[in-house]
Amino acid sequence: MLPELLVIKIGGNVMDHAQVLDGLLRELATLRQPFILVHGGGKAATRIGERLGIAARMVDGRRITDRETLELVTMVYGGLLNRTLVAQMQARGINAIGLTGADANCLPAHKRQHPDIDYGFVGDLAVEHLKPEPFTQLLNVGLTPVLCALTHDGAGNLLNTNADTIASGVAICLSQVYRVRLLYCFDKPGVLLDVEDLTSLVEELSPGDYDRLRAEGRIFAGMLPKLENAFRTLEQGVEEVVLFQPADFLAVAFRTGRNFTRIRL
Amino acid sequence: MLPELLVIKIGGNVMDHAQVLDGLLRELATLRQPFILVHGGGKAATRIGERLGIAARMVDGRRITDRETLELVTMVYGGLLNRTLVAQMQARGINAIGLTGADANCLPAHKRQHPDIDYGFVGDLAVEHLKPEPFTQLLNVGLTPVLCALTHDGAGNLLNTNADTIASGVAICLSQVYRVRLLYCFDKPGVLLDVEDLTSLVEELSPGDYDRLRAEGRIFAGMLPKLENAFRTLEQGVEEVVLFQPADFLAVAFRTGRNFTRIRL
Repeated sequence: MLPELLVIKIGGNVMDHAQVLDGLLRELATLRQPFILVHGGGKAATRIGERLGIAARMVDGRRITDRETLELVTMVYGGLLNRTLVAQMQARGINAIGLTGADANCLPAHKRQHPDIDYGFVGDLAVEHLKPEPFTQLLNVGLTPVLCALTHDGAGNLLNTNADTIASGVAICLSQVYRVRLLYCFDKPGVLLDVEDLTSLVEELSPGDYDRLRAEGRIFAGMLPKLENAFRTLEQGVEEVVLFQPADFLAVAFRTGRNFTRIRL
Repeated sequence: MLPELLVIKIGGNVMDHAQVLDGLLRELATLRQPFILVHGGGKAATRIGERLGIAARMVDGRRITDRETLELVTMVYGGLLNRTLVAQMQARGINAIGLTGADANCLPAHKRQHPDIDYGFVGDLAVEHLKPEPFTQLLNVGLTPVLCALTHDGAGNLLNTNADTIASGVAICLSQVYRVRLLYCFDKPGVLLDVEDLTSLVEELSPGDYDRLRAEGRIFAGMLPKLENAFRTLEQGVEEVVLFQPADFLAVAFRTGRNFTRIRL
């Protein structure tokens, strides 16, 4: 049987709250299985962009990344957040190594082409070129990769890439050599049938459950892309996808408790 | 015989000039021996600091690093410069990986203590804890470490550290397992007895030459700390230290030509 690997995605709900982050890092230090951490940017890029006079330009919920914005996210995601996170992990005894997709060529990507919108330096993972080796070589010597939301085009340009997509791409790729569990740290305990009612949590979600609940209009529209993405990830070899809140991390990691949503085929 | 390793330090004279940097990267791609690149910050930190309203505060030629300045250099050295450099190296076919001292715990350091001056987040390498393994593990799988001027204290803090010192510390440490040549890319061809006269270049400098030239007052005072440091590095096992200009890199690397200063015991 293949060894287990966790791919853990954390976003603004963790990165923007020092105490939550610290609690999570303390728990990560207790893990016995190898893992890869993927982090988003939270509000730091917008805050520092404002100080630099670089306004966020959004089209359809996507940040347009001109050259100045690329420099901003390279500084914030690849510098301030990633480097500081690694230093904090080292302080907790986790031998972390912080990466953009250019490091070890671990996340090759294509600049996004769109008939009408110029997204600038936005990249989509080149899944056909994504390989386990850059990660396994680090994992095999006891290092914990920490990925930020930057990929590269192989022609010298870093590219801004959605961290959720990176997490699922890496999870799929590594399922060739590990049993991979993909854990999305979330601002809710998981899929709620009523967002006002925490007891409406769906603890297990199969494709059949999903189709039925969606047909009944019982899943919040904002969740649909996340869940579609989760099922696509599972179809490509990932063992399970979990949506959870930071406080429940150990229960998820050690498969105890039920206060989160497990998605499986 | 141990294999050869080059430790190459580049500073503002390369980092601030895109064409010079590109030429050097193209030449680095032709190397057959493994190498480690160490880069300084050039003018980028000051330029971006000005835009953020963070003024550089210098005492005795050292930047005082308060928390805000630490965030600035983490963004600029560890983010913008290091990450972009790695992407450009990948485009040249060099499988680079960009590191601060926190990554893989490769550069442990102590916060500088001084009786009168609070340097803030400035670190001195903890040479007693510096080990070859974080570097050899990467080199052994064909990766090229690219180090910026940041170390860490093991308690969660990154520290601002002189890049020349990092280069010599890493060179000494790795001389346990490699024949190390430490190459400082410089704004002059090397040691000039007359700074106005390029034909006054000293091509070879031994401790005897150095003592004699210094006693005769023929070495520019600004060069003395650099040369003292070079001899200390050689006494700790590094095979040679070379001062050279970017245009002469291949001649240095392949030991052809003589338009640079070789310092040996």
